[in-house]
Amino acid sequence: MSLSKLFHPSTVAVIGASRKEGQVGREVFTNLIDTFPGDVFPVNPKADQLEGLKCYDSVTEIPEEIDLAVIAVPAGIVPGVLRECDQVGIGNVIVVSGGFKEVGEKGVELEREIAQFAKQRGINMIGPNAIGVISTGSCLNATFAQEMALPGNISFMSQSGAFCTAVLDWANEAGLGFNHFVSLGNKAVLDEVDLIREWDVDENTSVILGYLEGIDRGSEFIQAAREVTQTTPIVVVKSGKTEVGASAAASHTGTLAGSDSAYQAAFEQSGVIRVDTIEELFDFGSILAQQSPPESRKVGILTNAGGPGVMAADALEKYGLELAELEEETLEGLGKVLSALASRKNPIDLTGKANEEDYRKALDYVIEDDNVGSVLAMSAPAAIFSYPQLAEILAEAREKTDKPIVGTLMGGKLPDAAAESLKEAGVPNYFDPDRAVRALSALVDYGDVSKKKVTSPDQVLPEEVDLEAEVRALAERADGMIGLEGLGLLSRLGIPVVESWVARSADEAAAIAGELSAQLVLKVESPDITHKSDLGGVKVGVDPEEVTVEYEELLETVRENSGSSNLRLEGVRIQEMVKGEEVIVGVNRDPQFGPLIMFGLGGIYVEVLKDVAFRVAPVSRPEAEKMIKSINAYPILEGVRGGPGVDVDALVDIVQKVGQLACEVPEVSELDLNPIIVDSSGPRVVDLRMRLTQ
Amino acid sequence: MSLSKLFHPSTVAVIGASRKEGQVGREVFTNLIDTFPGDVFPVNPKADQLEGLKCYDSVTEIPEEIDLAVIAVPAGIVPGVLRECDQVGIGNVIVVSGGFKEVGEKGVELEREIAQFAKQRGINMIGPNAIGVISTGSCLNATFAQEMALPGNISFMSQSGAFCTAVLDWANEAGLGFNHFVSLGNKAVLDEVDLIREWDVDENTSVILGYLEGIDRGSEFIQAAREVTQTTPIVVVKSGKTEVGASAAASHTGTLAGSDSAYQAAFEQSGVIRVDTIEELFDFGSILAQQSPPESRKVGILTNAGGPGVMAADALEKYGLELAELEEETLEGLGKVLSALASRKNPIDLTGKANEEDYRKALDYVIEDDNVGSVLAMSAPAAIFSYPQLAEILAEAREKTDKPIVGTLMGGKLPDAAAESLKEAGVPNYFDPDRAVRALSALVDYGDVSKKKVTSPDQVLPEEVDLEAEVRALAERADGMIGLEGLGLLSRLGIPVVESWVARSADEAAAIAGELSAQLVLKVESPDITHKSDLGGVKVGVDPEEVTVEYEELLETVRENSGSSNLRLEGVRIQEMVKGEEVIVGVNRDPQFGPLIMFGLGGIYVEVLKDVAFRVAPVSRPEAEKMIKSINAYPILEGVRGGPGVDVDALVDIVQKVGQLACEVPEVSELDLNPIIVDSSGPRVVDLRMRLTQ
Repeated sequence: MSLSKLFHPSTVAVIGASRKEGQVGREVFTNLIDTFPGDVFPVNPKADQLEGLKCYDSVTEIPEEIDLAVIAVPAGIVPGVLRECDQVGIGNVIVVSGGFKEVGEKGVELEREIAQFAKQRGINMIGPNAIGVISTGSCLNATFAQEMALPGNISFMSQSGAFCTAVLDWANEAGLGFNHFVSLGNKAVLDEVDLIREWDVDENTSVILGYLEGIDRGSEFIQAAREVTQTTPIVVVKSGKTEVGASAAASHTGTLAGSDSAYQAAFEQSGVIRVDTIEELFDFGSILAQQSPPESRKVGILTNAGGPGVMAADALEKYGLELAELEEETLEGLGKVLSALASRKNPIDLTGKANEEDYRKALDYVIEDDNVGSVLAMSAPAAIFSYPQLAEILAEAREKTDKPIVGTLMGGKLPDAAAESLKEAGVPNYFDPDRAVRALSALVDYGDVSKKKVTSPDQVLPEEVDLEAEVRALAERADGMIGLEGLGLLSRLGIPVVESWVARSADEAAAIAGELSAQLVLKVESPDITHKSDLGGVKVGVDPEEVTVEYEELLETVRENSGSSNLRLEGVRIQEMVKGEEVIVGVNRDPQFGPLIMFGLGGIYVEVLKDVAFRVAPVSRPEAEKMIKSINAYPILEGVRGGPGVDVDALVDIVQKVGQLACEVPEVSELDLNPIIVDSSGPRVVDLRMRLTQ
Repeated sequence: MSLSKLFHPSTVAVIGASRKEGQVGREVFTNLIDTFPGDVFPVNPKADQLEGLKCYDSVTEIPEEIDLAVIAVPAGIVPGVLRECDQVGIGNVIVVSGGFKEVGEKGVELEREIAQFAKQRGINMIGPNAIGVISTGSCLNATFAQEMALPGNISFMSQSGAFCTAVLDWANEAGLGFNHFVSLGNKAVLDEVDLIREWDVDENTSVILGYLEGIDRGSEFIQAAREVTQTTPIVVVKSGKTEVGASAAASHTGTLAGSDSAYQAAFEQSGVIRVDTIEELFDFGSILAQQSPPESRKVGILTNAGGPGVMAADALEKYGLELAELEEETLEGLGKVLSALASRKNPIDLTGKANEEDYRKALDYVIEDDNVGSVLAMSAPAAIFSYPQLAEILAEAREKTDKPIVGTLMGGKLPDAAAESLKEAGVPNYFDPDRAVRALSALVDYGDVSKKKVTSPDQVLPEEVDLEAEVRALAERADGMIGLEGLGLLSRLGIPVVESWVARSADEAAAIAGELSAQLVLKVESPDITHKSDLGGVKVGVDPEEVTVEYEELLETVRENSGSSNLRLEGVRIQEMVKGEEVIVGVNRDPQFGPLIMFGLGGIYVEVLKDVAFRVAPVSRPEAEKMIKSINAYPILEGVRGGPGVDVDALVDIVQKVGQLACEVPEVSELDLNPIIVDSSGPRVVDLRMRLTQ
């Protein structure tokens, strides 16, 4: 499915081109004839002609081949019109009509009908309920928006039509141009997955921006975005962050996984840059559209004003960039250029006394410096040289180097005079040091994304284990809630677990304990109990010789606390106590993205500090490693106060295995391995809770 | 000292009004005669007249009384000129000349000279090395900037002249006006403390904005700002966040206290709102200048576009505001206005089909709702009504209510048409939902500041303790590093400490242990050791009966590890082991703000997560409480998993006492009470380290 004719048609029909001005169909028609050099055919059985063009009763009557049809008729008629389009072989349609999913049950049905038909017949359909499509390369404005976009190499899509109109007005004011500009509408057929794939191979698109409210095809999106972001950066606003996840979750993982966790994880895994605001969207878009990522995170700051230079240095730290330490040669060179009062140390402060030539020479030294990955060229309004002059200097520098050069020409009206030449030179400019550095950090971060080799998740589970059979056997237990009895499965999957033995009587317990020397943990064994601790069903730090007494006490306590007379108490599970850091690995399921895997340190870190990381499973080895290292408390695992670190590789292995398990066994709806106790000799799963659905 | 004639002079002299255009003195003169309605007198012995005005050889020759002199002569001449100004009774001067502190040693001396003279003679001096002062109320542009400010009720000061010019150009473009606009220069006499006090009582200043690089008079600033922010909000950019503090610190507190911690604490304590960017500075400034804080954090969102409404709701959570739950009455009212497809639930989505009247009625219902503290009135560009129409609706609503109404008219050029009437109505407008909510949150937060009663720190230390004598006695120990021997002082100050006894021999140790039943902690007692654990000088969990053996072992270990033969080992300190949460209270000294007090949970929380809070001492009770509650791990102190919390009141008491101690005994340069072990029965200091300087 190529979308090339959707964006670059030779002929366009507007079905529902109304006689009445202000009507959506009429606006689309007017916009088209205002901009589009190809043939436009209005379709309206009630009119003979419109704006001097012959009107057709139906699309089937148009004598020429039509590449793109814009449909703007009442919802009920859309299915018929779509069939007519298909009859005459139209492969691309934009349905701007409303009255579908957004109006409730009846609309949902209608939408399903047209989507099914379009998919069957291989029709590329945008919408319904969309504002339309702009493609500046073919001067196509097939929207009912009030403005046309400026040309540029950003392609933009939005799930909100209102957001489209706001962005268009804003971008026109800011002088930002687009290659393609798409209102996605209800996404009945074409969605973000199709568009990013199309735009990735489109040579006139350098960066993809999007406003999304939801992603339906979660794993396809991750797959596509992961590939696309290797060569084309994607920046999105995804609204609806704060909607809270299912509150009835039985696991820690379920409780902590809000509906946004999966989106956040998916974006992170696939290299999509997520932002909160329109400003960031376009600040990032404009630098990514104009410059290539630098080789390092080290930045040289050149300024004619000390204070703003310090603000920029602050911002470097805030956004994870670094102040470059300049080479001796650079310092010497700067020494020749700069006045005695100037600061050669990065941020290099030329002072307000520097003239044009000083700025040029200093900039030359900085871009030559091997320690400098990119340059922030700053200026406050100076009496000595003008912003247009400075813009020329930056343009010259752009010619000499591949390193990113970002302008921070501060002010309001004054920078306007330099805007055009900066744009031509491909130097993004921001009036505020913080904003400039934030944008630069997006470029640097994108460099990491594009350098990252896409590795597919490995096959980590032993193939000889019959997962389905194992899970079926476990699921036969009460309510599908699996506790410690699941340790055996984990062990067979190569996940290290603490050894344990079930004693069915006090004597059996004593016999088991007799073989052990360490302190023990006793846990009640019952298919009816999911929260053992809550009923006093766990006893920690038991000496082996006390086991007989503790066995009876434990069962008695649980029996009393449960208040139930027909509780099935099958005995007591005995484990040796292990010491180390507690971590948790868990699984939850997201409706859009599927299995979501969580990692965190146990106890307080999860419960109070919520210091956890999520990824959509499966995860590759480098991803699992990055996930583990991303939590705030990670230094604890590395070892603090000179103590030995834990075996992080073994944790990576567990994360990957649990991820694959969750992918291969959809019945696992929730899973907590909690705690996993880990020390330098390796991790051991001490307890688990798994919920299975059938 | 009133600054009224500085900002509202009747007569101004420009000393150094050069004949040469482009010279600083000439620019000031030109700006003045362009704007200022009062008399302007150029002083320049080399010229007879300038721009048609008679030039004077010296300020002493001007026949009229001069309210304000702007001095723009070479640095070396400034002291003489200043004396002349004083001779003729000029009480206000602005020194725009450079060549002072900023050029090094010689300039420092010169600056000290003029500062001393001005202070002695009661002259209000701005600068040197300043751009000047603008006061729109008196049409005074006494600067060499290229632009004049628009009138408004924001007063602004900046320590960076470059920042001044950038801000001025930016504000003029954005249509933001100022009452006073001051370039502080080197702040030799007048500084931020003087200006905020002056502007607080200035009825034409509603909000104070500032760009600061440093604050010299730390405690005066806190005192003044604390009072001023009760009625006048202060928003500042303070650059230089990332400069790292003294690396040779001997305490945890010292290590964690970067030079920015004191600023951060000072701003927090005094109600000053700190921001990172020019955009935030003015976004916050414009809402604070136009509206009063609401009664609650609950916000009603009205929008004609669903997606942006959700973005705004996301932003509420991000910035600590809440989505108001609408009253039944409001929902009913909205039901009458809204179409079937619209959402009555907050955020209220009128959909793109709403007309002007619908928006007006819906807004009326929302502002009437008692659950709504403030209203975010949003719109994407709509076909049905224009932004100027919407501006009128918002202006009407402003008349009807005291609740803040914030506009989010999205777009670029389109909102411009409504800008003037929104400004007139006092409705700040932001094109981005996130930005609008961020600004609103500043208004809401300021409400908390202005409602907070300023309480002076109480006298919390017992007056009968002779602090000076106690500290002198302690200081006689080696190197001024005090360890456990300081517990006695803490105890006498009413700070609970764990009981301890020093045994000088194994027998003495056994005798002490004989009286005790709990497990014990043994710590080597030596004036030569500051890091006991590093030498193996601490033994935890010793049974009372093992004390004799452990005593000898401990001393032996330390002796071996130290590798020193003349180590003074005075014995072993014996404590009962206590259990509970570990917290740390510490003191460090900041060069500008003095004693800085730190609170955090001990161990990992301090070392790895750096989860600590700072305040400048002394702290009032509510401040100490807020400080303790501000750490991320605070829920641990409240009790997790239903466990009992700790005695937070007793911790508040310790923080206050340590704060007062640090204030009254300047010799305490560093102090760690670490750990303090705390449970529901109260805290006990278990170990301490104090550095005394003489």
